[in-house]
Amino acid sequence: MKAVVHVSLKSGVLDPQGKAVADTLARMGYSEVGSARVGKVIELDLTGAPDKSAAEARVKEMCEKLLANTVIESYRIELV
Amino acid sequence: MKAVVHVSLKSGVLDPQGKAVADTLARMGYSEVGSARVGKVIELDLTGAPDKSAAEARVKEMCEKLLANTVIESYRIELV
Repeated sequence: MKAVVHVSLKSGVLDPQGKAVADTLARMGYSEVGSARVGKVIELDLTGAPDKSAAEARVKEMCEKLLANTVIESYRIELV
Repeated sequence: MKAVVHVSLKSGVLDPQGKAVADTLARMGYSEVGSARVGKVIELDLTGAPDKSAAEARVKEMCEKLLANTVIESYRIELV
């Protein structure tokens, strides 16, 4: 099984990397770009075959403990 | 319109950040994690309303020129 974790900054949290991307694109002539946000995707290969809900609970635990900083980031888990 | 660009390392390219994540999760007791890959997601807010295929062509150009390093990274564009 594979888990895909999407980590993004909560809305309202400043995103300097996104701002740099948007500013640079504007400077390059892509005036249609209003703003940009940059997030992370972490793909985990899960070995063994636990059931889906158990796997999701484990991945949620990993997010809370390591993968996301829940003070400023939100995450979304997708199992495929 | 919104464009979501997924940038990930091509397979075969070493991913030290992903390796660090996988090793750390294993050390924390999550032995089901075989490997991990870390990618980026860039969300662009596009103002104006060009048609979808024109917008996609422009975003593709942005990827080639700035958002992805096509030597080692592949990208996927999603318009929403």
